[in-house]
Amino acid sequence: MNFASIIYILGKLIELEGVLFLAPAFVSLFYREKQGFVYFIIAVLCIIIGRIITIKKLEKKTYYAKEGFISVAMGWIIMSVVGCLPFVITGEIPYFTDAFFETVSGFTTTGSSILSDVESLSHCSLFWRSFTHWIGGMGVFVFMLAILPMTGAHNMHLMRSESPGPDVGKLVPKLGESAKILYTLYFGITVQQIFILIITGMPVFDAVTLSFGTAGTGGFGIKNSSIADYTYLQQLIITIFMVLFGINFNFYFFLIIRKSIKSAFKMDEVRTYLGIVAIATAAIMINAWKIFDSPADAFIKSFFQVGSIITTTGFSTADFNTWPSFSKTILVLLMFVGACAGSTGGGFKVSRILILIKSYFRELRHFIHPRLVKNIYIDKRRIKDETVTGVKVYLVSYVLILITSVILISLDGFDFETNFTAVMATLNNIGPGLSVVGPTGNYDSFSVFSKYVLSFDMLAGRLELYPLLILFAPGTWRRR
Amino acid sequence: MNFASIIYILGKLIELEGVLFLAPAFVSLFYREKQGFVYFIIAVLCIIIGRIITIKKLEKKTYYAKEGFISVAMGWIIMSVVGCLPFVITGEIPYFTDAFFETVSGFTTTGSSILSDVESLSHCSLFWRSFTHWIGGMGVFVFMLAILPMTGAHNMHLMRSESPGPDVGKLVPKLGESAKILYTLYFGITVQQIFILIITGMPVFDAVTLSFGTAGTGGFGIKNSSIADYTYLQQLIITIFMVLFGINFNFYFFLIIRKSIKSAFKMDEVRTYLGIVAIATAAIMINAWKIFDSPADAFIKSFFQVGSIITTTGFSTADFNTWPSFSKTILVLLMFVGACAGSTGGGFKVSRILILIKSYFRELRHFIHPRLVKNIYIDKRRIKDETVTGVKVYLVSYVLILITSVILISLDGFDFETNFTAVMATLNNIGPGLSVVGPTGNYDSFSVFSKYVLSFDMLAGRLELYPLLILFAPGTWRRR
Repeated sequence: MNFASIIYILGKLIELEGVLFLAPAFVSLFYREKQGFVYFIIAVLCIIIGRIITIKKLEKKTYYAKEGFISVAMGWIIMSVVGCLPFVITGEIPYFTDAFFETVSGFTTTGSSILSDVESLSHCSLFWRSFTHWIGGMGVFVFMLAILPMTGAHNMHLMRSESPGPDVGKLVPKLGESAKILYTLYFGITVQQIFILIITGMPVFDAVTLSFGTAGTGGFGIKNSSIADYTYLQQLIITIFMVLFGINFNFYFFLIIRKSIKSAFKMDEVRTYLGIVAIATAAIMINAWKIFDSPADAFIKSFFQVGSIITTTGFSTADFNTWPSFSKTILVLLMFVGACAGSTGGGFKVSRILILIKSYFRELRHFIHPRLVKNIYIDKRRIKDETVTGVKVYLVSYVLILITSVILISLDGFDFETNFTAVMATLNNIGPGLSVVGPTGNYDSFSVFSKYVLSFDMLAGRLELYPLLILFAPGTWRRR
Repeated sequence: MNFASIIYILGKLIELEGVLFLAPAFVSLFYREKQGFVYFIIAVLCIIIGRIITIKKLEKKTYYAKEGFISVAMGWIIMSVVGCLPFVITGEIPYFTDAFFETVSGFTTTGSSILSDVESLSHCSLFWRSFTHWIGGMGVFVFMLAILPMTGAHNMHLMRSESPGPDVGKLVPKLGESAKILYTLYFGITVQQIFILIITGMPVFDAVTLSFGTAGTGGFGIKNSSIADYTYLQQLIITIFMVLFGINFNFYFFLIIRKSIKSAFKMDEVRTYLGIVAIATAAIMINAWKIFDSPADAFIKSFFQVGSIITTTGFSTADFNTWPSFSKTILVLLMFVGACAGSTGGGFKVSRILILIKSYFRELRHFIHPRLVKNIYIDKRRIKDETVTGVKVYLVSYVLILITSVILISLDGFDFETNFTAVMATLNNIGPGLSVVGPTGNYDSFSVFSKYVLSFDMLAGRLELYPLLILFAPGTWRRR
């Protein structure tokens, strides 16, 4: 095991987190909040500790995929442990487990909360909470790659371990360049959302924090009513941006940088994703027609909730816990589907579903006509057999983690709907589930043990299972 | 498409069902029930119609796997349509949909019922209802193969389509012989159960019908309280026989016919299956300790329910709907696991789970050490790659059917727990689910549409998905 590299990378990460802590410290100046000191002191400490760890330069030793996975898994855990300290020290979330859960939920862009009264938090803590979404959305290692010069093997393995999707592609030959392009697009679209929301009359603080939550597909709100008290227009804008951030960023690369509308709209995943959003919205509008006030209300509420769930954001404007069960079932299904690969959204990912369904029909056809061998094509490109196998292994891992988690948290004695959707909502990085953990509920009533199980699920979901599984696999740490 | 062969086989099946109808007609003589006439007349009509259809001898035309699947799928549907006629004509289950649901539930050994008062049925109808479990348990085509002389290709494809498990093996080189051995073992063990139950003082009618329900892992009782009113000893005997019928019949072949205890107990699947039963029973005893009257009560109720669910029988002696949620979650999980392949039980099958888990850890290991290629072994035999792929495709088919069914039946507006477990209980051929369809509830409140969806699930589950999927696939019927 290349411990030197792992420790160096973790040191860099702590230093980076220190710099990021300066943002909420800065925000506190506007609101004259004393909590800002805590953020400032922790920021300085992180920068100093990070510097000390990285005094020795990165060795050019071999660095395997396994080390990439372990660095990323440990990095995200350390980032969350450090990131929750201000909540504990300021006393705004007094218990470590709760603060850790909330911070993991932030970085993994889940948006599940243990807080019943968000509005009691200070502005700088609310800012930090939403900022974690933005940092976690595109990935903190991707950010490191974008700003730090590092050697080839490290880059590839780190980016592979952190980026979502069955088949991580580079936009341009150089990985550091790809990371820069991704962050530029991410930053650019976020800024646009902030401006548009400010134009509609939303306060600047709300516009910034909600845009962070939208961009990272996180879902932490700054009001107890989530997004329900904003105007229809603002809700619609947020919905559109949620859906935009759930699209594969290659789409924007083609559209904005390569200026090729044709290549962008040729992407099967994006078309399927938009199709699912449209069909699900229509189905819910029809099924739940009676409970809405007007056709406009029906459209905006259905569209908002569908966009929020499929992109795994988790904002809410309606208590869908009270919707008819057909509509609820569709939402549970969308929880599983998730957004596009290469977006900031979580879930199983539309491209994986596409590969599964296509491979499934191929095998079924093969079953009837044994001599027929059909390859799978996505975007007119043949999908490699190992990618297909990878997706199937991923499904099994996913189901195993899902089942184990449901069993473990069922020890708390909640109903099956609560347990099942709590695990779905955390493993897919959505936020709210149904029943006890519905849009008007929260995760506070779970035991300490269950909160760690769900924190594991959030991390496993965000990092796409393998980094966490490898970190906790006994074989990884055995000496050979 | 070889229609001539398909029609011939279906004709034979109708004739066979006619002969089977004579059994309830015979039972009615004891109880002087006039419903017996209905069974007798339908029996005679079936025999005549079947004879007419099969006047033209079976052609020696090529008969592909596809035709085997279609024959079996259509056979089971026709068998259920014909089998439900007595219920409708005697007026004991007046609506066709309900009678069809009940009969499909019988033949597929599911045991889900739409009846709230079973005890109001006549003895001959109760007998027929339980008899369908026994017929469906080992398979009606397997029975045909055991008694009718047919040519090679037909046999193999029919048996493949009807027998459960990822890898259908022959016990002895000749398929007809294998079928005969299976039915001899099946008949023998059933008769033993009947005798042992009679010795404990159970009325003969109860002993026979309950043994049919146990042997087929069906679950139709003849009392509204299912098995709860029988003595502890009788409950324990039924539990042991349920567990025995959930074991791969190869085990008995080794044990009884080959007299090799060593080969029998070397079977990984059987050992895993018995291990799961033991662990699940212990876990539920501990978790639900408080709600039981005594340690003996705790053991017998836990063991009974675990045995009943994992073997997909579906008898009940306790309303597990009121058990703590950890215990309920374990039961839902056992619904998915199911019994051994090559047994009369349903579900996903222990051997498939074994293959999935082994292949999963292999792939995960491969992920960390890319140069390591490890094969999967079960019973010290290497599992072919195509079998592993087949199991994965099966999982995907299974999940797709599960999801689609839950969406469709959620239109009726029941809660998620009801919808999810109703589909789990029918697709895995168990019987009762949780909430509305729990052990004290029934399936009557579902709409006509949902009852057909659930009937499809029962058939798909019993025939292991493919025959039904191929029957309903548009491509199957397109002319080329």
